[in-house]
Amino acid sequence: MLSDLIRCVVLALLLALGFGGNGSSTRADPLPSWNEGAAKKSITEFVARVTAQGGVEFVPPELRIATFDNDGTLWAEQPIYFQAAFAIDRAKALVSRDPELRKRDVLKALLKGDRAALAASGKKGLEEIVAVAHAGVTTEEYAKVVSGWITSARHPRFNRPYTELVYQPMLELLAYLRANGFKTYIVSGGGVEFIRVFAERVYGIPPEQVVGSYGATKFQIGADGRPTLIKLPMVEFIDDGAGKPVAINRFIGRRPILAFGNSDGDHAMLQWTAAGSGARFMGLVHHTDGEREWAYDRKSRIGKLDKVLDEANAKGWTVVDMKRDWRRVFP
Amino acid sequence: MLSDLIRCVVLALLLALGFGGNGSSTRADPLPSWNEGAAKKSITEFVARVTAQGGVEFVPPELRIATFDNDGTLWAEQPIYFQAAFAIDRAKALVSRDPELRKRDVLKALLKGDRAALAASGKKGLEEIVAVAHAGVTTEEYAKVVSGWITSARHPRFNRPYTELVYQPMLELLAYLRANGFKTYIVSGGGVEFIRVFAERVYGIPPEQVVGSYGATKFQIGADGRPTLIKLPMVEFIDDGAGKPVAINRFIGRRPILAFGNSDGDHAMLQWTAAGSGARFMGLVHHTDGEREWAYDRKSRIGKLDKVLDEANAKGWTVVDMKRDWRRVFP
Repeated sequence: MLSDLIRCVVLALLLALGFGGNGSSTRADPLPSWNEGAAKKSITEFVARVTAQGGVEFVPPELRIATFDNDGTLWAEQPIYFQAAFAIDRAKALVSRDPELRKRDVLKALLKGDRAALAASGKKGLEEIVAVAHAGVTTEEYAKVVSGWITSARHPRFNRPYTELVYQPMLELLAYLRANGFKTYIVSGGGVEFIRVFAERVYGIPPEQVVGSYGATKFQIGADGRPTLIKLPMVEFIDDGAGKPVAINRFIGRRPILAFGNSDGDHAMLQWTAAGSGARFMGLVHHTDGEREWAYDRKSRIGKLDKVLDEANAKGWTVVDMKRDWRRVFP
Repeated sequence: MLSDLIRCVVLALLLALGFGGNGSSTRADPLPSWNEGAAKKSITEFVARVTAQGGVEFVPPELRIATFDNDGTLWAEQPIYFQAAFAIDRAKALVSRDPELRKRDVLKALLKGDRAALAASGKKGLEEIVAVAHAGVTTEEYAKVVSGWITSARHPRFNRPYTELVYQPMLELLAYLRANGFKTYIVSGGGVEFIRVFAERVYGIPPEQVVGSYGATKFQIGADGRPTLIKLPMVEFIDDGAGKPVAINRFIGRRPILAFGNSDGDHAMLQWTAAGSGARFMGLVHHTDGEREWAYDRKSRIGKLDKVLDEANAKGWTVVDMKRDWRRVFP
């Protein structure tokens, strides 16, 4: 009650000083990095409809669940998924200081930069690198390692930290939705513990609203009596494709009314969202801007956008044309 | 902003009418069903310490995570787990109308009430009953079935709906914590989709704050083009014992600062909570009241309270003596 009171006093002061207020005639554009057009209009109209008290499409705040893919939707994903860049750096660092690991062919190839041997190791080789990079430490040690990497590693093309390659228009959209009572979630094929390290700082999304792929962990009490969770080199769940609605049901337990993705890996999540009753918003980021970012879709190895683009076009879902709809790409 | 304004107007009216307010000199006891004593005092003192702005033990609201076991902690669990009662009723109903299911020995025994045959089928037989009861339908159909059962089934001893066998003191504790900025979670060995059906109505805990055991589900698009999630007869994760810290890490991604349980199945959750830095609260409900509820602990088949009771006593965790500490048990 006291914290409510403080909030009210602050609100009264803000209003008195002329800030904010949806009813104010001088209100600022909540989506300044979006060009005027069909995509932006579809967003603001949807939010207006579901938040209009007494309107036929009103949705109470507790049901305003919005889910966002991460790679290619909230931040870039080229030339390789950023978590893959982390896995390579991390595996290299581990191999360079551990002679035992160097006995394993794929890890030796990684350290030597032997591309032919790496390619020959195929999917199994990649899985071995990922397993080494993400296991063998406690969950807390892992978070520290990711934190160190994410603040120091730089993207090869832009020479900026990866967390600066988030999309400014999507940051504005997340904040706009939250200001309108939505609970914003990440539902990503990436590792849940990887994303949580920076999601709150970068996206304003707390750990408990990050859903992702996850590996096995083991609870154990150390010799010092201290309990830890050890990360094991076993993937338990891949939160991609048909796994996304499964994870949404498992972690959130409510169906989103808004979902945003950028690839066929988001198709099932968007179908699941579309199939609910009442007002729905399905959005896709279409990477059309080779100059400011990248241009790719149906033929891309990463972030392939094909079947879901057809369904979006057929059903009138919102397709954001990055080149045309975004005034600005990165912050 | 508009909804904030409405909330403030309502708050101002309430205050004008003399309701509520922690700052009021006539403030009501937030835990009226708790007798005065060490247990109640340990709770209110902990909350005061972690919410005191500027205090050395202050915890910001986003880190005020509280996790509660369900069976035996928030509601009763005797003579059998309530979800087991559901599984039996549901399996019987299914078997009675499906001749195919009647061909399976354990299900035939269940329908006939053949206790000897049921006992002989052992753990495997029980798993078969649980699988039949919880699978073969969509997640939405399952929620409807549970909802129908929970509103109509009655407890054999008390002849009341199971949802009336929740503990009034714990309902007050949940509300008290939330009023002090805590996010309250259920972390239960029960099925997450089972508990979510009534958690919001009964406990004020929304679906996304219920963590539990879960089975496999399969996303599929029906012949009518409608996507559904089908529940499969495979358990993926048991959220009990050492699984509880694993699930807390997986679903919440933050360590609780307060945890409450009642059995050795909660031991790991309490150890995990205790091992964090800063102020911590570990609580146990000790079932000591055979008259109003049940009295059981170290020798009980259900809700065995043994090793964790030793650790609680050794480390000064709060052990709630139901008979002594609770003025009232059920609402």
